[in-house]
Amino acid sequence: MEQQVPLFVKMALQSWESNIQRADKLFTELTDEQLLLEVAPGKNRAYYLLGHFVAVHDRMLTLLGLGERQYPQLDAVFLSAPDNVEATPFPVHELRTQWKSINETLEKIFTNLPAEEWFYKHTSVSEEDFKKEPHRNRMNVLLSRTNHVSYHLGQLVLIKK
Amino acid sequence: MEQQVPLFVKMALQSWESNIQRADKLFTELTDEQLLLEVAPGKNRAYYLLGHFVAVHDRMLTLLGLGERQYPQLDAVFLSAPDNVEATPFPVHELRTQWKSINETLEKIFTNLPAEEWFYKHTSVSEEDFKKEPHRNRMNVLLSRTNHVSYHLGQLVLIKK
Repeated sequence: MEQQVPLFVKMALQSWESNIQRADKLFTELTDEQLLLEVAPGKNRAYYLLGHFVAVHDRMLTLLGLGERQYPQLDAVFLSAPDNVEATPFPVHELRTQWKSINETLEKIFTNLPAEEWFYKHTSVSEEDFKKEPHRNRMNVLLSRTNHVSYHLGQLVLIKK
Repeated sequence: MEQQVPLFVKMALQSWESNIQRADKLFTELTDEQLLLEVAPGKNRAYYLLGHFVAVHDRMLTLLGLGERQYPQLDAVFLSAPDNVEATPFPVHELRTQWKSINETLEKIFTNLPAEEWFYKHTSVSEEDFKKEPHRNRMNVLLSRTNHVSYHLGQLVLIKK
């Protein structure tokens, strides 16, 4: 059964990548004006979700223990606070560049990580708790962040047409 | 590394279950009237997404090669056709019951399936292709259907308040 570990890792990575690609395609198709639209009346703007993705994916670097954050300045607007439709504190083109950059950074790290290291603990669990809860590992972060992309992707597509 | 096989199967199952539970909680909170609302103007009704989930999860039985379909009559309305806001061909209470039932059925099958059997091929790939593409297995169906739940869950929450 041992050869299934790399296979599983490959499948989980493919799932992450295909969701990132779908989101990337969608963001590319949306104009800067469309990015400022809400996904539904009174709900988050696509702009907010773009910044939210950058912040969440940027945090994965430290959560996985695989790098230093690049865009911590986004947290106050896109993680700690709800969308404020009156404000556009970061330029759209800057977020678009950061979205590409952070996903490329993760992609490089992910494809170079040996399969077994996906099962190392992530950084927000203690060594002690990890002994009791070995599922609190990097792979769990990958699976849950993949679902997170899907979740907001389902909202973003509502803006099209 | 061998002990990680049951561990990652367990993680993938937990991810599926937690998404099902979130969706179940939401459907329980939504009234029958709310189920008939669109997630955004001109988009699918929650009613459609409920039926769509039942049909897609029901199809997993045959796709995984683990059982016979129970609700093939839903396909024409909830899989092959887009939502028709003028029509409510199946009673809401019936879909609610089927949603509970199909997920319980899957849950029982999933928890009893030996870890290594998740890496057997699914039924829409030939033996020949599977040799070349061993990721086309049951686990891949589980990961992709988990993302599918997340995707529509992101839309369903828009109906709340």
